[in-house]
Amino acid sequence: MKINPTRFLQDLHNLRQFGAAGQGKGVVRPAYSKDDIAARQWLAGRMEDAGLVPHFDAVGSLWGLVDGPSILLGSHTDTQPEGGWLDGALGVIMGLEIARAAQEVGGPPVSVVNFQDEEGRFGVTTGSSIWGGVLSLEMADELQDRDGITFAEARASMAHLTHDFVDPKRFTGFIECHIEQGPWLDEANEAVGVVTDIVGIRDMRITFDGQQNHAGTTPMHRRQDAFQALSIFNTRLNQRMRNVVTPQTVWTIGHVSLHPNAHSVVPGRAVFSMQWRDGNSDRLARMDRIIRDTAAEVAEEMGMELSYGQMLGLEPVLMDARLQTALAEAAEAEAPGRWRKMQSGALHDAANVARHMPAAMLFVPSINGISHDFAEDTDERDLVTGLQVLARAVAALG
Amino acid sequence: MKINPTRFLQDLHNLRQFGAAGQGKGVVRPAYSKDDIAARQWLAGRMEDAGLVPHFDAVGSLWGLVDGPSILLGSHTDTQPEGGWLDGALGVIMGLEIARAAQEVGGPPVSVVNFQDEEGRFGVTTGSSIWGGVLSLEMADELQDRDGITFAEARASMAHLTHDFVDPKRFTGFIECHIEQGPWLDEANEAVGVVTDIVGIRDMRITFDGQQNHAGTTPMHRRQDAFQALSIFNTRLNQRMRNVVTPQTVWTIGHVSLHPNAHSVVPGRAVFSMQWRDGNSDRLARMDRIIRDTAAEVAEEMGMELSYGQMLGLEPVLMDARLQTALAEAAEAEAPGRWRKMQSGALHDAANVARHMPAAMLFVPSINGISHDFAEDTDERDLVTGLQVLARAVAALG
Repeated sequence: MKINPTRFLQDLHNLRQFGAAGQGKGVVRPAYSKDDIAARQWLAGRMEDAGLVPHFDAVGSLWGLVDGPSILLGSHTDTQPEGGWLDGALGVIMGLEIARAAQEVGGPPVSVVNFQDEEGRFGVTTGSSIWGGVLSLEMADELQDRDGITFAEARASMAHLTHDFVDPKRFTGFIECHIEQGPWLDEANEAVGVVTDIVGIRDMRITFDGQQNHAGTTPMHRRQDAFQALSIFNTRLNQRMRNVVTPQTVWTIGHVSLHPNAHSVVPGRAVFSMQWRDGNSDRLARMDRIIRDTAAEVAEEMGMELSYGQMLGLEPVLMDARLQTALAEAAEAEAPGRWRKMQSGALHDAANVARHMPAAMLFVPSINGISHDFAEDTDERDLVTGLQVLARAVAALG
Repeated sequence: MKINPTRFLQDLHNLRQFGAAGQGKGVVRPAYSKDDIAARQWLAGRMEDAGLVPHFDAVGSLWGLVDGPSILLGSHTDTQPEGGWLDGALGVIMGLEIARAAQEVGGPPVSVVNFQDEEGRFGVTTGSSIWGGVLSLEMADELQDRDGITFAEARASMAHLTHDFVDPKRFTGFIECHIEQGPWLDEANEAVGVVTDIVGIRDMRITFDGQQNHAGTTPMHRRQDAFQALSIFNTRLNQRMRNVVTPQTVWTIGHVSLHPNAHSVVPGRAVFSMQWRDGNSDRLARMDRIIRDTAAEVAEEMGMELSYGQMLGLEPVLMDARLQTALAEAAEAEAPGRWRKMQSGALHDAANVARHMPAAMLFVPSINGISHDFAEDTDERDLVTGLQVLARAVAALG
């Protein structure tokens, strides 16, 4: 099989014209937007040209299918509200080029997928979650975006294109190429990362309810200040986490909402997000206990009521060993000494696909670790190296 | 002079019908609302009945004037969006009753004032700030409320009633009675507080700018998390403040705004309010230095950019010694052993009036320290005791 780097890069650049932001190579192509649908229709044409059978499933995920059993390559082409040109688009176009090259020499059989709404306008990796059986279509249909549009309404806008879901049994395995979205490969001047596992995630809201009061007449020792409770909780949590975490573990308070959130009022309520990620389910559970114990301790000491929102979670997903080996051998052949095995701290479609079949992921560097931003970019030599690694692995897997 | 407690209480209860919230004795009567203007017109009629000359000044503050030099009593009848029935209304109706009783016996001469927008729909103690020369009418006219309505537009709604500002030189002094809005008198079962001083206030916004990033792929040691900077700043500040403050000093972070304020994003920016109050200008300045030094230190350590918003400030105001003495002697006569001298942690119109003339304040208890709430209340016996103390002090001052 002879891949064509020029044709591959040309397809990538053609794709970024759909929803081009007019700032650098930035792209605005959220799921089900006019530009998103146009990009998918263009891609369906390229699949047909490549000898694949294009097929939109019930939620608008686009498949380029070959007859009989095949390996599946791909990712997603929808973007964040302000996205970069590569992100998931890279994995889709890489799949297209490899499937096309394979068609040209009569094998191995390669199919391609472009999942819908990976970026979570409605859910989280919505298209592959539904296909992976993590989320029912009925429940997905009720999800709303920020403007109150339901998933059911959004996917109806593609109804003239869509058909049934594709049977996962036709695929022997799945490999997703994606930009790293982190700094490690770029900093080490390495070209390729072979993903060992996708970390698990826990996410919930915590609320401290104290006593709203006058910021002038309420003495310090009589306050039940919910912001102070949050600050003390955060400080203690950081100290305690250090005893259980690895250098890859992360935990984040990214959202804070005080009530009434006014200069002259002692905050009576603090609602905040608590999110943590790690590759090990047991560690996620230990962190959960530390978080709840620390929050309860602070609430008790400060006379606060404590409550928790719904806990969202995804378990860590190990990548398939045989596919990892094929990718590692290909990486060493194409970029000797310039690749590593690494964890994915970000969630990807592969985590859902792994419920149906062996799955693996390949990373290429992100310049300065930037992603989900118009400035996102990767050196084109690294894009081509990634393509060569993936093609070699697919050929080896037969 | 013979005050009439029944008539006084009846006027207080009549006033709370204007904007009655329908919850307990709660009142909704923000500055320039229909109910606020109706209440002021009703009060102008009561003043006229009492032998005073009612006069609306250019911003709608209502005056009940006697000829020649007089002492001035009063406060304000506008309320918070959800207010109690007493707050400033108490001081106005108390002034009315004492002026009326004095008229009935031919002296001493007592005038009454009901300032406009003490609660700060537009500014802070807006009516008395303008009259006190702290804020120019031109600048005030550009202030906007939360709905974008300007002070100029709001006061135009009273233009059919208003006249010139009143010359401060006609008054020999000012005494404002107000509910305490704090817990101390109620807890000690005391009836009266004689205010020694109104604390000064400093208020500004502080911004930490770090680096927004992916909460999954950005390792902890590489984050520039603006919420973490805020939390560390808060912890250190609390430790350092303890070395310089008194039990009356307060400092508050009441408003916090993170950007982008999302569960899965390391916050790149934290904007928060910093407000501190104390009766001593030097201490306010020392606290200012500690705040700025601590913020700069945290910013330096964490690689944050640091910026400050406009610093708002009011200096502490000492109450006039002679008026304090008259109030203290009257308190001891009317409520022996059941009164105290105390600081006001809340700002009041008296702080602005003090720029023109000797000024003093009298507090009555707030049940459970509650104010700016429908549940705000004071035992009617304490209201009457406050009236008796104020009347005795006014009589003694001649």
